[in-house]
Amino acid sequence: MQNIGYYNGKTGPIEEITVPMNDRACYFGDGVYDATCALNHVPMHFEDHLNRIYRSAKMIGIEIPMEKEEMRRTLQNLVDQVESDSTMLYWQVTRGVGMRGHDFSSVQGAPSVWAFVKPVQMRDPYGSYRCITVEDKRYYFCNIKTINLLPAVLANEEARLAGCDEAIFHRGDRVTECSHSNVHMIRNGVLYTAPCDELILPGITRKHILAICERVGVPVLEKPFTVSEMMDADEVFFSSSSALTSRVTEIDGKPVGGRDEATFARIRDAYQEEMKRECGL
Amino acid sequence: MQNIGYYNGKTGPIEEITVPMNDRACYFGDGVYDATCALNHVPMHFEDHLNRIYRSAKMIGIEIPMEKEEMRRTLQNLVDQVESDSTMLYWQVTRGVGMRGHDFSSVQGAPSVWAFVKPVQMRDPYGSYRCITVEDKRYYFCNIKTINLLPAVLANEEARLAGCDEAIFHRGDRVTECSHSNVHMIRNGVLYTAPCDELILPGITRKHILAICERVGVPVLEKPFTVSEMMDADEVFFSSSSALTSRVTEIDGKPVGGRDEATFARIRDAYQEEMKRECGL
Repeated sequence: MQNIGYYNGKTGPIEEITVPMNDRACYFGDGVYDATCALNHVPMHFEDHLNRIYRSAKMIGIEIPMEKEEMRRTLQNLVDQVESDSTMLYWQVTRGVGMRGHDFSSVQGAPSVWAFVKPVQMRDPYGSYRCITVEDKRYYFCNIKTINLLPAVLANEEARLAGCDEAIFHRGDRVTECSHSNVHMIRNGVLYTAPCDELILPGITRKHILAICERVGVPVLEKPFTVSEMMDADEVFFSSSSALTSRVTEIDGKPVGGRDEATFARIRDAYQEEMKRECGL
Repeated sequence: MQNIGYYNGKTGPIEEITVPMNDRACYFGDGVYDATCALNHVPMHFEDHLNRIYRSAKMIGIEIPMEKEEMRRTLQNLVDQVESDSTMLYWQVTRGVGMRGHDFSSVQGAPSVWAFVKPVQMRDPYGSYRCITVEDKRYYFCNIKTINLLPAVLANEEARLAGCDEAIFHRGDRVTECSHSNVHMIRNGVLYTAPCDELILPGITRKHILAICERVGVPVLEKPFTVSEMMDADEVFFSSSSALTSRVTEIDGKPVGGRDEATFARIRDAYQEEMKRECGL
């Protein structure tokens, strides 16, 4: 199959799957999601992503109606049904179905489990990427991976229309993250990345990058940095399950980074190795 | 019919209506909505609500695939099919259907038009209501009526669990609005209400209340007020299409208002008259 969809036990080509109009995803974005890439039919950092969706759900009071092992089996089964050996596995849990009403009491029955798998081309880790900056007008729940994503969608579109690959958010001076990835900079051999507060998502790729830095001896400072510090950094890159480690060479039309390829390459190469090892490539 | 649903021309009991899983409502909350009450099968302030959804859609780059008159006819037709003479008419337009991707280019075809009508009991305009205050952690797009409503849903649930009727948001000291209504206070015979910036929705009921104030000679100040000013106000009330003018007598367990019923009653009664006149009651 090319694109497989899943909704509460129903499976099929995603284009044919329908869901109840009254699922609270539809009116409120009342749900959480997670996603990762699967290479060779192995979802990357699967355990981390599974754990994160349970954490996200708990933070907004959704009890996932499925044990983690059942979720893992269900999702792996979907991944196995798609022929491509480079896929995106996406899944979400929403508060459930019921006549529209803000009250949780309007929900009838259990939360809904949704998923799909589609072929995906990951970003080239040896490429160079262009970004724009966008004022971060999002809510203060960015640490929860919810499906209230409109500001991210709008920022991403702004980047696309500018011929760029990502939008880097800043709240005032402070760089937070990108429209669908975390952003980091290297200065004097040190990796700077925003701390995990309510302004950024605790990225799984970010987490593994920090572990790699520890392993390969790149010091890490988890502290906020500003737009001008980023513009003046030795290297800038963004990371996510599908962006991997994407090196940024231009922001808002100005050249950035490109001054410490050695340090960036240590991180990138270690991440590539980790990915290949985990996915049995 | 009791609850009628509509999705892109398909109509039926809402419990039976399904929508494509790939509608962008489901993954991103990528859409806008509007809603009003219909009494005697007359949607209240219909023209204003119709205008607002076109404005909301435009602000996030959605082109509604239907002229206003066609939308009016379609929605009126739904209202007419529900027996109750006190209903909620809800409708939304989402960016459309396509494999999940932030890019608008992943959308196939036109935006989707959704609607439903259900019986509703409006709040008693002679009642008294209890509220809690909640830190406003929402995004800075509150002036657009989008379906990214999770923070409102969470705040409303917090109010419900506290045995209250609404959650009043404040951003720091500044009172913004409620989880699904605008909030106002009366001090020394003057109506204070937050100005229409990106922190509040320009409520239709709010707009008509301001026009009433002008008509009945209650001075209005559209400027931000603080939580402590509200706690010390002569009257506090919240307003929406279904909340009408709901007088608040307790906030966070402390008594508030109740010191200028005469001014509040002039606004409430004029609003009631306007409603009855418009709906031919």
